[in-house]
Amino acid sequence: MAKDLLVNYQGKPSYTIYIREDFNDLASCFRRDIDHSYDSICLVTDSNVAPLYLKELLDIFKGLCDNVSSISFSAGEQSKNLDTVQLVYKHLINKKCTRNSLLVALGGGVVGDLTGFTAATYLRGIDFMQIPTTLLSQVDSSIGGKTGVDLDRYKNMVGAFYMPKMVYMNLATLNSLDDYNFACGMGEVVKYGLISDEPFFEWLKVNHNKLNSKSPEALEYSVYESCKNKKYFVEEDPKEKGIRSYLNFGHTLGHAIEKLSDFSLGHGQCVALGMVAASHLSFDLGKIDGKELEDIINLLGLYNLPTRLEIEMNPEDILAASKSDKKMQGSKIKFIILDEIGKADSYMDFSDQDLLKAIKGLLN
Amino acid sequence: MAKDLLVNYQGKPSYTIYIREDFNDLASCFRRDIDHSYDSICLVTDSNVAPLYLKELLDIFKGLCDNVSSISFSAGEQSKNLDTVQLVYKHLINKKCTRNSLLVALGGGVVGDLTGFTAATYLRGIDFMQIPTTLLSQVDSSIGGKTGVDLDRYKNMVGAFYMPKMVYMNLATLNSLDDYNFACGMGEVVKYGLISDEPFFEWLKVNHNKLNSKSPEALEYSVYESCKNKKYFVEEDPKEKGIRSYLNFGHTLGHAIEKLSDFSLGHGQCVALGMVAASHLSFDLGKIDGKELEDIINLLGLYNLPTRLEIEMNPEDILAASKSDKKMQGSKIKFIILDEIGKADSYMDFSDQDLLKAIKGLLN
Repeated sequence: MAKDLLVNYQGKPSYTIYIREDFNDLASCFRRDIDHSYDSICLVTDSNVAPLYLKELLDIFKGLCDNVSSISFSAGEQSKNLDTVQLVYKHLINKKCTRNSLLVALGGGVVGDLTGFTAATYLRGIDFMQIPTTLLSQVDSSIGGKTGVDLDRYKNMVGAFYMPKMVYMNLATLNSLDDYNFACGMGEVVKYGLISDEPFFEWLKVNHNKLNSKSPEALEYSVYESCKNKKYFVEEDPKEKGIRSYLNFGHTLGHAIEKLSDFSLGHGQCVALGMVAASHLSFDLGKIDGKELEDIINLLGLYNLPTRLEIEMNPEDILAASKSDKKMQGSKIKFIILDEIGKADSYMDFSDQDLLKAIKGLLN
Repeated sequence: MAKDLLVNYQGKPSYTIYIREDFNDLASCFRRDIDHSYDSICLVTDSNVAPLYLKELLDIFKGLCDNVSSISFSAGEQSKNLDTVQLVYKHLINKKCTRNSLLVALGGGVVGDLTGFTAATYLRGIDFMQIPTTLLSQVDSSIGGKTGVDLDRYKNMVGAFYMPKMVYMNLATLNSLDDYNFACGMGEVVKYGLISDEPFFEWLKVNHNKLNSKSPEALEYSVYESCKNKKYFVEEDPKEKGIRSYLNFGHTLGHAIEKLSDFSLGHGQCVALGMVAASHLSFDLGKIDGKELEDIINLLGLYNLPTRLEIEMNPEDILAASKSDKKMQGSKIKFIILDEIGKADSYMDFSDQDLLKAIKGLLN
């Protein structure tokens, strides 16, 4: 089993997503896609991933370049900042990395976003590739060229749109994820069904046992379907001027909850809560009916995602934090809702009362 | 008198350079080029420029947008770093600047490079425009989309290629420059004659009195010719994969000298020294004759630029610092030399002995 997806950027072929079950094909995919030799290659990873895969990957890249190094930082969102970026810059300077160098992001979303931003800005931009090792990064953050870091409590405040040269995902790495982190990625997987792929939503309803037990076929199908849906949005609207913002379904309130929890709640978990609230808003607008709302909430539960906020949080604080999010347009929050299951839309005209009602729905 | 130059980026019209003698035309040029209204506009400037022009510019932009703010930082290369960038980010967050905001760089090269990089990376990229107020920034750094900051002692180590929405230069601001800073910009002006415009080189030989006394006609002609030459290189090769590197004539050794002087020597002054050394190398290769070499050195002198290194510096240190510059390709320095006056070329095969000989030529 092996699936490839070619992603276009601004109408031209840009990079391929390789979905594989091991790292065996990496060197040959690399040789096929990268038509010149780099002066040096640097692998960037974190303290969770390094013990698991760094040695194997270093060996592969040493077969592709004479000058290979690695740098690992402390795992977690608290490392996703400009201090860590500067540590990587200094490593690159010490290793005399030139413009003809390649960065390899080996890890989850934090590693991918931070490495991509470092690549986008070191010497005004060097090449990078993604080797995502979590479900969240395989189905979402490794695709589409959004890179960035947080600034103080502001998530992804600093960043760049910058495309990888290739994305290689080994589905076997998902076996090292615990249930919580697997569920975290499932938040984004379910999202694709909701915003653009009703048949996939139905498939997810039927196949939760296979997927939760990490059946290789079910994993491959759901990662591939997710990447295909993400590819559609990023190709249509690479800089998020229009429909790419549909991918933010569940994210505006989700980011607010994530921030207020001081990142003790995972990204996918918070997105699940945000999707529940946004589905309530869709229901209030008469876009979906009570049965569909129930279906959505049940499906999230089947994938071990929260549908109620278990930690104490003030609804007014959640609303205020949402308003400080970067998706504001003037003084209005641009909210992504469901027009129906499998179809998203954006909506600007919610009052604070509407939003507070939906947020309070998470507390009951 | 008024001249406009439309600059293309990747084959498409991108931004216009307006060369004017005051700020009177700014609002109408802005309205013509920017076809929508910004949520907010932030002027970024420094402690040298703010007392001279900030109030006038704030008044102009307040006529173009309801939400205008400004931030000023301490003038000088020592501010060109990620700490200052973070101060600007935080100002933008405090002012609730959205993706639909505009940054305005009001000042010299440090302000322009730093503001452009901030715009390139705040919320993954917002619009910016350049109002360069020094000769160096008008003829060089405000054009072509190179943005960035220094990292420790490494100049422009962090940055992005990011195009402004417009560039508006008021030649009257050059009257506030002292002789040293005027000469600094002349280093780059002379460079254009040497690398791509022999008639302009001849014009500069004849018109040094007019230009040094800042005759408006001579200023306009030389700024326009410089911008026209820069436009040619950045349009042909926006990401510096090829001929744009000719603009680095004099810069490889120049940057090394600048760094070793701890930035006590100005950029244009160091570029002048680098051009003298590179011209010696061109002479050694038989590309230019002794009369032409003398002409180059004399012309730099006529514009009050150094042609000998007056402060003590070890030639080996200059060579080593050049090698740590980002223009390295593998272990070789890519050197820009003159094929003839008005025509540059790149050359990789200098030995350390060749380079040391040219550097030592600056010490005699």
